Amino acid sequence: MNDGRNLTLLTDFYQLTMMNGYLKSGIYDEVATFDLFFRQRGQINYAVAAGLQQAIEYIRDLHFSDGDIQYLRSLNTFTEDFLEYCKNMRFTGDIYSVREGEIVFPMEPIMIVRAPLIEAQLIETALLTIISHQTLIATKASRVTTAAGEGKVVEFGLRRAQGPDAGIYGSRASIIGGACATSNVLAAQMFDIVPKGTHSHSWVLSYPTELDAFNAFADIYPDSCLLLVDTYDTLRSGVPNAIKVFDRLKKEGHKPLGIRLDSGDLAYLSKKARKMLDEAGHTEAVIFVSNDIDENLVNSLNEQGAKIDMYGVGTKLITSDGMPSLGGVYKLAEIERDGRAVPRIKKSDSIEKITNPGFKTVYRIYEKSTGKAFADLIALKSEQIGKPLTLTHETERWKKTVLEDYDIKELLVKVFEKGECVYDVPTLKESSQYRRQSLDKFWDEYKRLVNPHIYKVDLSDGLYALKQSMLLGNDDTK
Amino acid sequence: MNDGRNLTLLTDFYQLTMMNGYLKSGIYDEVATFDLFFRQRGQINYAVAAGLQQAIEYIRDLHFSDGDIQYLRSLNTFTEDFLEYCKNMRFTGDIYSVREGEIVFPMEPIMIVRAPLIEAQLIETALLTIISHQTLIATKASRVTTAAGEGKVVEFGLRRAQGPDAGIYGSRASIIGGACATSNVLAAQMFDIVPKGTHSHSWVLSYPTELDAFNAFADIYPDSCLLLVDTYDTLRSGVPNAIKVFDRLKKEGHKPLGIRLDSGDLAYLSKKARKMLDEAGHTEAVIFVSNDIDENLVNSLNEQGAKIDMYGVGTKLITSDGMPSLGGVYKLAEIERDGRAVPRIKKSDSIEKITNPGFKTVYRIYEKSTGKAFADLIALKSEQIGKPLTLTHETERWKKTVLEDYDIKELLVKVFEKGECVYDVPTLKESSQYRRQSLDKFWDEYKRLVNPHIYKVDLSDGLYALKQSMLLGNDDTK
Repeated sequence: MNDGRNLTLLTDFYQLTMMNGYLKSGIYDEVATFDLFFRQRGQINYAVAAGLQQAIEYIRDLHFSDGDIQYLRSLNTFTEDFLEYCKNMRFTGDIYSVREGEIVFPMEPIMIVRAPLIEAQLIETALLTIISHQTLIATKASRVTTAAGEGKVVEFGLRRAQGPDAGIYGSRASIIGGACATSNVLAAQMFDIVPKGTHSHSWVLSYPTELDAFNAFADIYPDSCLLLVDTYDTLRSGVPNAIKVFDRLKKEGHKPLGIRLDSGDLAYLSKKARKMLDEAGHTEAVIFVSNDIDENLVNSLNEQGAKIDMYGVGTKLITSDGMPSLGGVYKLAEIERDGRAVPRIKKSDSIEKITNPGFKTVYRIYEKSTGKAFADLIALKSEQIGKPLTLTHETERWKKTVLEDYDIKELLVKVFEKGECVYDVPTLKESSQYRRQSLDKFWDEYKRLVNPHIYKVDLSDGLYALKQSMLLGNDDTK
Repeated sequence: MNDGRNLTLLTDFYQLTMMNGYLKSGIYDEVATFDLFFRQRGQINYAVAAGLQQAIEYIRDLHFSDGDIQYLRSLNTFTEDFLEYCKNMRFTGDIYSVREGEIVFPMEPIMIVRAPLIEAQLIETALLTIISHQTLIATKASRVTTAAGEGKVVEFGLRRAQGPDAGIYGSRASIIGGACATSNVLAAQMFDIVPKGTHSHSWVLSYPTELDAFNAFADIYPDSCLLLVDTYDTLRSGVPNAIKVFDRLKKEGHKPLGIRLDSGDLAYLSKKARKMLDEAGHTEAVIFVSNDIDENLVNSLNEQGAKIDMYGVGTKLITSDGMPSLGGVYKLAEIERDGRAVPRIKKSDSIEKITNPGFKTVYRIYEKSTGKAFADLIALKSEQIGKPLTLTHETERWKKTVLEDYDIKELLVKVFEKGECVYDVPTLKESSQYRRQSLDKFWDEYKRLVNPHIYKVDLSDGLYALKQSMLLGNDDTK
């Protein structure tokens, strides 16, 4: 990533022991195809892809420093041949990925790596870390934004994040997912996000009285002050003091921003505060709330008629509370053997853990009449998708839909070709816009928080046939 | 932190708007005392403090670069006086902290910052991010280790971490909390941790058959190979193939390590696999398990008589699944005004959100007869703690205990004095050892996972009296 750190050793130790082994047994440069995807079927109705920019930076910067090699040598595990290989190691393969902001679903590849086995193995861990994390947070941000409305969510989570990167890249991902600003100054600087924030309780406690504190703040920021009104007593002290200050500012020709509520019953307090502000003539003063906000609380506040203009969303967004990991995996789907591409499959007693073999791609199928997304189709890259198209459920094969006419989009785009980046990363704003447009193509039934309709992700006939033939065969278990 | 990044802007925007305001209103250099603590009473029976080393590195490195100042100027929010102040800004205050590995409890300060208000405000966010994150993960590791046994937990979570730092510093914190090794090579290099790991499913899938794959791996690592046996069918293929390879290795004079189970019913499979290995004469081969391990699953596996030697603990450790944030806060407790120290309190309708005023410290009281921890006492720093000692419950004042004789330890040690670090950070091994020794001083009843006994954290008489007088007074709400 572009922050001066060398993350080449940000990998699992077994990747290195395997790389050492692949080199020794001579299969290190056979081209392997790995699929990166997540499984949480049933837990995630949709996800918002994010993290591609940092993944690209990581791949571009991949190199073992002299210090890294020295460290690896000190572990007495690796051959000198391997350490020699590491010295000049660079990524030379191809990578396909969905765009940032793309709406994606469990079980479909969101990134595909085709590279010499030894390289593809090294990058597994960091790609999973980067892509899974940002996708997780962008998804949470999208859920909160869908509940709150576009332009109404500010990312507030840095202090509760799982370390600096979780704050920095979580903030970035939140913007892709629909947040409009962040409290995190470093993230704002790095990614050109609008930084937002006003004052905390300690500002109020640093002055003799609440009114002194409000006045001092208003004098410095007369046209942008958002006053935190819950340090002592929201309705008896905070809001009345804020109104006094706003009265003065207005007389002086300023336009104060509003108040922030950070504790108590936000439905009750926001309605009361709105009434007090309106009666004092401050109808334009906004009410900003924070304190354990997530998509469920936003929906509940909406249902109760709370009077809220903006949400500061912290802990539960930045940690993806309730599901703190996307469970991303990276599975071998094909390997070159004696110059021939051989599909691979991981069997398992658990149906969901069986992988899809072969070099694949993913299509999104849109209904011609409505323009809405109808299903995703995982297909072999070599397969032709014709018209009419028959979509068949993977396990319940009697469930079929025939589409006479449809629009189709390939979700995966080429990002690296022979080790060179061939993709221009859009700006964050563009990726956020792309998410919004992509999400608009889905019926609301897929987006609702409770008991959502499950979007179809089907296998093409070619992929299904290949998978079945491999599951029925048992030559691999000997 | 010592990784080349300048994290000075890793702060909330409102810290900077407040700093700008404190400078303008002239109170910027009044010495403020902030307490860092967490609240989750009822959710956490105990926590293991961690992150101090990175907090120290962050404070030492604190400085605004020219680029930072330029960026801040571009936001059109700050005065030139403030930007000028930033140019030479360094931390000049005092910091007290508990040691890494200390057992700590909700509501008691684990770090206290005494510094000019403007400095103390800047560092709030990053200190919370660093300390809360590592304390959260060290705590989870300690819970898992208590269930599994010391020396039996390997941290495996990097790919599921919330970004690179969450993996790197989460790994570090896991070691303090009781893990004995990590899969994360970069963390191993940075913090001198033992890196561990063998091979994945993709190794097996990269060879024509499972037996080929096992043989290839065993040839390279004949004395340390841990074979992953669940790629095709654990009991019918994986374990029998592993036994074939172990038979050969033994004949050749080697000592293979064992097998790893990564799916299926770990209780059933481990017992069956143990039997098969033992019957084949491989009684020394270890059984290592991974796959969604946490403290509850370990306890359940123990109860079922599972035959497991080591645990690889990934997702649920590195994300602290179930509680992904510690909810750390940083509250103003005292501020200098006209050269006099004035205690401060934040009132709230929610009792738990009322803060403890004044410059304080924390003592741990041990029973003389057993050597076990009896209670923690939050007291004013200036207070004398005598013998006998009367401990009084904070809200239920009739609950009193009189200790005629006891041992006492002050938990907070001085880390920075007038901006200089005056503390030698112990090694990770020492901090892990310190955790183990500290935890041994607590009765098991406090450590159990279900319905634990709640450890007493009381307020001293002096602190209680101060708090009551401030809560009864209402001069602050005007």
